Amino acid sequence: MRQPYVAVVGAAIATDEETTWAEEVGRRLAESGAVLVCGGLGGVMDAAARGCEAAGGISVGILPGDFRAGASTHLTVTLPSGLGEARNTLVVRAADVVIAIGGEFGTLSEIAFALKMGTPVVGLESWRLEREGMVGDPIQRAGTPSEAVARALGAAGPV
Amino acid sequence: MRQPYVAVVGAAIATDEETTWAEEVGRRLAESGAVLVCGGLGGVMDAAARGCEAAGGISVGILPGDFRAGASTHLTVTLPSGLGEARNTLVVRAADVVIAIGGEFGTLSEIAFALKMGTPVVGLESWRLEREGMVGDPIQRAGTPSEAVARALGAAGPV
Amino acid sequence: MRQPYVAVVGAAIATDEETTWAEEVGRRLAESGAVLVCGGLGGVMDAAARGCEAAGGISVGILPGDFRAGASTHLTVTLPSGLGEARNTLVVRAADVVIAIGGEFGTLSEIAFALKMGTPVVGLESWRLEREGMVGDPIQRAGTPSEAVARALGAAGPV
Amino acid sequence: MRQPYVAVVGAAIATDEETTWAEEVGRRLAESGAVLVCGGLGGVMDAAARGCEAAGGISVGILPGDFRAGASTHLTVTLPSGLGEARNTLVVRAADVVIAIGGEFGTLSEIAFALKMGTPVVGLESWRLEREGMVGDPIQRAGTPSEAVARALGAAGPV
Repeated sequence: MRQPYVAVVGAAIATDEETTWAEEVGRRLAESGAVLVCGGLGGVMDAAARGCEAAGGISVGILPGDFRAGASTHLTVTLPSGLGEARNTLVVRAADVVIAIGGEFGTLSEIAFALKMGTPVVGLESWRLEREGMVGDPIQRAGTPSEAVARALGAAGPV
Repeated sequence: MRQPYVAVVGAAIATDEETTWAEEVGRRLAESGAVLVCGGLGGVMDAAARGCEAAGGISVGILPGDFRAGASTHLTVTLPSGLGEARNTLVVRAADVVIAIGGEFGTLSEIAFALKMGTPVVGLESWRLEREGMVGDPIQRAGTPSEAVARALGAAGPV
Repeated sequence: MRQPYVAVVGAAIATDEETTWAEEVGRRLAESGAVLVCGGLGGVMDAAARGCEAAGGISVGILPGDFRAGASTHLTVTLPSGLGEARNTLVVRAADVVIAIGGEFGTLSEIAFALKMGTPVVGLESWRLEREGMVGDPIQRAGTPSEAVARALGAAGPV
Repeated sequence: MRQPYVAVVGAAIATDEETTWAEEVGRRLAESGAVLVCGGLGGVMDAAARGCEAAGGISVGILPGDFRAGASTHLTVTLPSGLGEARNTLVVRAADVVIAIGGEFGTLSEIAFALKMGTPVVGLESWRLEREGMVGDPIQRAGTPSEAVARALGAAGPV
């Protein structure tokens, strides 16, 4: 059995609450032995990496640009992709489950890719999606970082 | 001045109404001299290509797979990308404006990428998006194919 | 039966001979009903597109950047990919056969991808490749544009 | 100052000599504190990861497929890319320097991408490249794994 991979997605410019949440999510993921995957930049991504680092976990940042400039300094591994926004698909592809914290349109693209691929998504104050004929909420909602991590690890299941 | 590129996005398995709309959208885009870009498969994509072909227009289908198998037969140009779902980013990147007709999660990812890149999105019965703090609807709504095309060409502006 | 897709690859800054060859290759491909695919920029790419346009053919340029700026003005369709150098894989993926004219390291990457995918490569004064244990030349050599196009269409076979 | 990232590229079905070399290269990279990046599959990739693991190093495998199936079990981090052969560009993009051990056409594409991006390439019995007008060998040759690692770390420079 391998460790679960959990993507933490959210905005590069985050609110104080989102940053606090992301850091706790990162810490709890590390404590549970999960590998954290993110987009490698600031805001939610940096905070999650910082929490993960503080608990001795492994984190991977997949960057949009050609170089490592601008990457969070708290990541175990940084990978410039050179693919621009298409790197969002890599963040999601690497994950058994996605935790979305708040988020702008880039985060929405990651949620959508995950749902398209059948990868579970847990949301902390994130997007609400509605469409004619859709029953129920495709995103599992959590009220706290602790609940988000518990739901995510449950949804990832044995991997 | 070059011709505008308009992406038409929607589900591979579409309702009759969506198919009818997509075909009219494709026809009207061709009549206006736009280049139609789509994901190259069935449903909304195939119907839009068929409408475009009927009016003598140019259409491009960017496919997820390694080969052309399964592509709509109504496209002027088919391009297998070998990138899987990441090809959705290519469909949007090629477009000056996106018309979303209905749609599942793949369509949602295309809407999100367009909004992230600042590319206007016109919706015909498509996703509704809500988020704390967001004012207004990021998608321009149209009630008919004719209105969708008019709005899209207006939003594309001189290119 | 569909038309064959032929990628023409070579340097953005080309010699006079390469430019002349590329233009003739583009023209002959158009006359034979093939769709020309290229990287959409200058040098060999622009010359091939110009030749294709002169003969009323269809050409597609897949660009590395986020925008159409810098694209050859002779292309039927231009597609910004936003993938940087990874767009080279798209040019090759779209092709039934590749014609390499001269070329730098980018061209070498396209030749390598084609050979990896089992796509035939025809070379006009292009790279020579050697490796311990490899028997024969993996590239089909042509001495003139006319011979290159004939070999390419033969190698593409019925598609 | 961050640790250097070194890509080790070579065939998935490797000779005994290549496998032995790759394992030693992986071990020496780990001992020097470098992060090893590879394509994550068998042969040279698996052997390099095994050597890296034995010395307690960090290795990243970027896989072509949608899933982790088939990945080397010796990697610290595995990332399915879903991009097919285009993942070769990611392996190279992540690296400050590339070590090529033997190799088939996929390896050649990685060498070509590295040279295109200006990333140094060190070769152990790998491809020989010739082109009209090219002066010198674009690949730095090494005769042993030890020499390859020394050259690679020297070429990566302070990063």
